[in-house]
Amino acid sequence: MAVAAFTWRHNRLAVLDQRLLPRQIKYTLCRTHQDVAEVIRNMSVRGAPAIGCVAAYGMALAARNSQPLKRAADLLKAARPTAVNLAWAVDRMLKVPPSKFLEEARRITREDLAVNKAMARHGARLFRKNSVVLTHCNTGALATAGVGTALGVIGEAFKQGKVKKVFVDETRPYLQGARLTAWELVQMRIPHELITDNMAAHFMNTEKVSAVIVGCDRVAANGDTANKIGTYGLAVLAKYHGVPFYVAMPTSTLDLKIKSGKDIPIEERSSDEVVNWRGIQIAPKQTKARHPAFDVTPARLITAIVTEHGVVKPQDLKKWIIRKP
Amino acid sequence: MAVAAFTWRHNRLAVLDQRLLPRQIKYTLCRTHQDVAEVIRNMSVRGAPAIGCVAAYGMALAARNSQPLKRAADLLKAARPTAVNLAWAVDRMLKVPPSKFLEEARRITREDLAVNKAMARHGARLFRKNSVVLTHCNTGALATAGVGTALGVIGEAFKQGKVKKVFVDETRPYLQGARLTAWELVQMRIPHELITDNMAAHFMNTEKVSAVIVGCDRVAANGDTANKIGTYGLAVLAKYHGVPFYVAMPTSTLDLKIKSGKDIPIEERSSDEVVNWRGIQIAPKQTKARHPAFDVTPARLITAIVTEHGVVKPQDLKKWIIRKP
Repeated sequence: MAVAAFTWRHNRLAVLDQRLLPRQIKYTLCRTHQDVAEVIRNMSVRGAPAIGCVAAYGMALAARNSQPLKRAADLLKAARPTAVNLAWAVDRMLKVPPSKFLEEARRITREDLAVNKAMARHGARLFRKNSVVLTHCNTGALATAGVGTALGVIGEAFKQGKVKKVFVDETRPYLQGARLTAWELVQMRIPHELITDNMAAHFMNTEKVSAVIVGCDRVAANGDTANKIGTYGLAVLAKYHGVPFYVAMPTSTLDLKIKSGKDIPIEERSSDEVVNWRGIQIAPKQTKARHPAFDVTPARLITAIVTEHGVVKPQDLKKWIIRKP
Repeated sequence: MAVAAFTWRHNRLAVLDQRLLPRQIKYTLCRTHQDVAEVIRNMSVRGAPAIGCVAAYGMALAARNSQPLKRAADLLKAARPTAVNLAWAVDRMLKVPPSKFLEEARRITREDLAVNKAMARHGARLFRKNSVVLTHCNTGALATAGVGTALGVIGEAFKQGKVKKVFVDETRPYLQGARLTAWELVQMRIPHELITDNMAAHFMNTEKVSAVIVGCDRVAANGDTANKIGTYGLAVLAKYHGVPFYVAMPTSTLDLKIKSGKDIPIEERSSDEVVNWRGIQIAPKQTKARHPAFDVTPARLITAIVTEHGVVKPQDLKKWIIRKP
């Protein structure tokens, strides 16, 4: 990939400020784990797998700076509550000695890359020739250490000559679809059309949409899936129109400790992020907006889950995953 | 209402430039029917009933300026294709002598005001105490000559103490919900929360939504309804969640010449209006957006239609309306 979401260089973590894309490519240099917590919190870096990798490097910085590790872990884990990869990566770091933290962070990153490739290979089999695929938010290279999750699948299917067009939800309020996914699709030369989120139903009804594929931030043991706000609505619409609905999930995003979607914590962010767009107020100042950053899609609306080990029905996830290495 | 969408003054039509709301209140003075066609085309004025009234005054200007009336009528009718009120109002003007055009335009406007009030009264009966209502786009005073269609119903129900809260879809790409509906609700002191369009499903699922009510731009004889893009998706979501879905329709928006939604022309506007927000590009320049301005909701997803004559099921619309004066 041409532009990486993060890179470790000279004992510092450089994190791409994705809020400025596609207009500007600018990296923030993180020297401390506090710096890392801040770039996660302010969404310079986003995407469950990328957040996990970056948090692991944050722990490496904490060790390097001789900081109390338990406190550093808590700070990083609290930066964003919904994506489980964050807690997963930090907890995994704590299982190795601090002298091995940097090595472990690099291993987590390398593994994510390999997991991305495996998911892409398994997921691409779901698509037939001339597919029109709809996706939401950004799940590409910018959201991971590799080719992405859902967008990685789309990219691989495209390479195999199976994808005719991608409908990209702009994904309000942060516009990850318009700013990030469209940008990655331009680089991959994949034909695409940007749509506002409220157009998805119209195109499912008036044009052929072969499948919807999205990423995820935390999947409960029963297959209920938390992902970017708007995913649940898309799943309902896909069901109504008979369109298969796929979730691309690295197993690091599966949280077997959580039984069902009801127990997944949903981050509510500030009203300002909805009513302000780069300093322009889009609503009267007396008006407050709601801003759940995620929603939960029940397993029954998910056709299949793509993992690095293969494709599985959400109902079979738990027993199936336990059998895996 | 404090700020009118349009006013006739000193033989000129002053039209509020709604694209600048809520930041700026500025009227454009129309001296010719070409001026009027332009403010309709560029969406300074929008909302099916308001467009009808403004076009009628456009015909009055054409007559006053001794312009060829047939050509003026064609120009005005071509300004926007979907809302039938535009053609309805222009055709109605042509049935009276040009010397009576101004009088007829005033009559159309007065009638719209009365129709709004009657709809509000009938529609308010659909709501029970403590209702949480979700609405899309703008259907208030700014979209009509009076209190509005769907928003007029909400306002009346609120006056009767039945509305606890309104969820306002921001309504991309033009943000009529955020900019116009929220602004009207602030003025009416009705409690409301702004949401991005992709949050509607989440709140239908996690909070009680008592009803969805929207306006319409053209209703076919079978009850299929063209309205602002995003309406169809909302109707599917409402059905899935068992939430009643109402359409507020002045009978001037009913087009008995059109059998079903399949035959309603859907305006496709420019990609630029999606990818640019006040001069800020939100996607890579190589990315093109789709921009259907409307979608069609089939009658089977509509619980009831509120008209100035009363509330009717969409299937009964045709036979019912023929019996009315």
